[in-house]
Amino acid sequence: MKLIEPRTLKGFRDYLPKEQIARSRMIREIVGVFELFGFEPLETPALEYQDVLAGKYGDEGEQLMYRFKDNGQRDVAMRYDLTVPLARVAAQHAAKLSRPFKRYQVAPVWRAENTQKGRYREFVQCDADIIGAPAGLADAECVAIAEQVMLRLGLKKFVIKVNNRKLLNAIMRAAGVAENKIVDAIRIVDKIEKVGAKDVSEELCEALDMSSVAAEKLINLVSIKIPNLAALKTFADTHISGDGQGLEGFVELSAVFRALDEMGVTHAEIDLSLARGLDYYTGTIYETIITENPESKKFGSVAAGGRYDKLIHMFTGKDMPGVGISIGLDRLFAAMEHLEMLGEQSVSRVLVLNLSEKLQPLYLRTLSAIREAGINAEVYYQVADFKKQYAFAESKSIPLAVIIGDNEAQRAIAAIRNLKTREQIEVPQSKIVSEIISELRKIS
Amino acid sequence: MKLIEPRTLKGFRDYLPKEQIARSRMIREIVGVFELFGFEPLETPALEYQDVLAGKYGDEGEQLMYRFKDNGQRDVAMRYDLTVPLARVAAQHAAKLSRPFKRYQVAPVWRAENTQKGRYREFVQCDADIIGAPAGLADAECVAIAEQVMLRLGLKKFVIKVNNRKLLNAIMRAAGVAENKIVDAIRIVDKIEKVGAKDVSEELCEALDMSSVAAEKLINLVSIKIPNLAALKTFADTHISGDGQGLEGFVELSAVFRALDEMGVTHAEIDLSLARGLDYYTGTIYETIITENPESKKFGSVAAGGRYDKLIHMFTGKDMPGVGISIGLDRLFAAMEHLEMLGEQSVSRVLVLNLSEKLQPLYLRTLSAIREAGINAEVYYQVADFKKQYAFAESKSIPLAVIIGDNEAQRAIAAIRNLKTREQIEVPQSKIVSEIISELRKIS
Repeated sequence: MKLIEPRTLKGFRDYLPKEQIARSRMIREIVGVFELFGFEPLETPALEYQDVLAGKYGDEGEQLMYRFKDNGQRDVAMRYDLTVPLARVAAQHAAKLSRPFKRYQVAPVWRAENTQKGRYREFVQCDADIIGAPAGLADAECVAIAEQVMLRLGLKKFVIKVNNRKLLNAIMRAAGVAENKIVDAIRIVDKIEKVGAKDVSEELCEALDMSSVAAEKLINLVSIKIPNLAALKTFADTHISGDGQGLEGFVELSAVFRALDEMGVTHAEIDLSLARGLDYYTGTIYETIITENPESKKFGSVAAGGRYDKLIHMFTGKDMPGVGISIGLDRLFAAMEHLEMLGEQSVSRVLVLNLSEKLQPLYLRTLSAIREAGINAEVYYQVADFKKQYAFAESKSIPLAVIIGDNEAQRAIAAIRNLKTREQIEVPQSKIVSEIISELRKIS
Repeated sequence: MKLIEPRTLKGFRDYLPKEQIARSRMIREIVGVFELFGFEPLETPALEYQDVLAGKYGDEGEQLMYRFKDNGQRDVAMRYDLTVPLARVAAQHAAKLSRPFKRYQVAPVWRAENTQKGRYREFVQCDADIIGAPAGLADAECVAIAEQVMLRLGLKKFVIKVNNRKLLNAIMRAAGVAENKIVDAIRIVDKIEKVGAKDVSEELCEALDMSSVAAEKLINLVSIKIPNLAALKTFADTHISGDGQGLEGFVELSAVFRALDEMGVTHAEIDLSLARGLDYYTGTIYETIITENPESKKFGSVAAGGRYDKLIHMFTGKDMPGVGISIGLDRLFAAMEHLEMLGEQSVSRVLVLNLSEKLQPLYLRTLSAIREAGINAEVYYQVADFKKQYAFAESKSIPLAVIIGDNEAQRAIAAIRNLKTREQIEVPQSKIVSEIISELRKIS
């Protein structure tokens, strides 16, 4: 029989236990925050009709979609993000959903990205969205979620940059950008953090035919520091006072920051240069950047989102306000790994050594008692020497071993060994569980 | 612009919050048990090379696989189960894995099944497997996991039927089934519970050309009740004493039941008629049937598995012992729904009513304090009348509301309302969190 080479597709990867334990814990924290804020879980299929998913990501997006014909010759595609499926659900099941509808979903999405850029073709998104609530409190909650998630994961130095698309549009107009070029200008300004003001200025002149004076004005305007709401008011009065949409954006952004202040959120700041690439944002936009050290910025935005009021339009013909947050699990994981914040990962806390066939009843009773106390524990599945069993425990970072050999059995005791310090204590067999609990308390 | 009809593919479905909250809780319990037994999480890609996935499920399986060419013209397929990807991982990353390797994975798989049979084309599998441990303790642990999961989910009446393929093969031989027809005979005997002895007997005669005497002998043998290990020994001595493989199976099955006894597992019983359809089992096999009421059996096996020693062969050319358990989330969910065991599902415990724009700072401070106590809570995102806000709370089964209108604000109090009983109490604003905690205790 010909052997099959065990391998994964380019851009796909396995997450072996050491990594996946850390990822699972991160997901639990993230879901915990979503639920703390009253979001409920939703699951949607991995496969959808192609026409349902297409048309919202632009041509580039469609190219990146995994599309094929199923056995019934239907044109299907694998989920590209969690937002369009949400829009479909909101349109399809409107009568069954709470209003506003607050849902979270943690699930993989698939994009046939260029892997040379270090991107994966399968990655997990952690999204929470609010459908059907107006600008203001709902937007602030999304920003507050970003802060809570970061804090729960142990990150302390980070900044959540917040802006408003309506305000940004008005700034564009104030700098002389033509109405039909605002979307392109937003895409260019979006790179200011990455490539610097000079390159952005040049691209504005070349790609959009702006004068260097206008480009400079635009860059100057979005670079103005806005330390507080009074400064925002001054900015609005000075630069966009005649712009109706701009004033709307100013009012929204002010409302969001007042709410953030009242909720005790301290990591958010206004950044007029924040643009975010995606077309579909219509109001609040925000991004979270880790600032623990100069390098940590390179991981980019780890939690971001904004307001979109037109997404459900493609299904219903009507606008419906929406605002959300998307947390990039893989980026956060990479950043935390870089910062050495993942810690040692283990599921199992205790290994009951298997040293004698005839002591098996004792091992299994001991094991059951430890598990009944809610402690993750296991027994080595066959009699083997210490070396082999310790190696197993070490490969899983199991902190404690329970040792009962013939000698211990005769004396009705057990040894509990700390596998890291190699210290061990002898305890009566009736005290094994309580001693394990106290040893584990010392460790964590 | 042409509207797109919001719809899901045949055989695929959305899980809206009410269902998904219950499903998520079930998954948490299942994962909790897997971790209690020392299993670590593994994630594998949804997409794999077709040749990696194919060849293990037989022709029928391959027909049911979602297969296509990706943008790079590679032949790819969506995951059909979690076992073959595990075998690939065990072969591909052998050096990085603990030995034995104990992993769990909870993830969707995809099969283009005939939906007329009420089957879905996307469903979640919850698998735990042990690679690299011999028959005995490891098999017993899988059965013990099945029991623990059922008990944690609140199920009390169920039976875990256990058998051994080696023993069953010997019984086949004892009844005169030709060696090359044993696999087919196993598939036919597998239906005995569903279609009855008479139909099985007829099919054995017709499909396998057995005499009616031989068919009857086979059915009589597998129908013998085995209440304990002594009875199993008597059976082995009487019917398969000359069969080496059969005696191996007898020894394995005895070891498994001794271990189950020592672990305190009480729901397992030997059933010699249990066959399980899949080809790849080589030793222990088991299934879990709910017996809460006569109808609950119809949901079939909700937790099942067995030992397979050849699965990694296709990648490495070597045998490697494996044993596992697969829990059918959707079947369990359906059975528990039928038994009305899912209970009322809610994430959010408290809604802070939004009754006045100028009281927003107070609402948000209150909300933050409730959340800081670890209680899932939310505020209605805009000022609205009571009716609308109560309807929102009801749609999410939120049990408590915090009411602070102008009247309450002036008196520095809040009303806490039980939304089910419609009783409400007035408390000083400084006591809101502690009163909520005490009200929630009464409810759950």
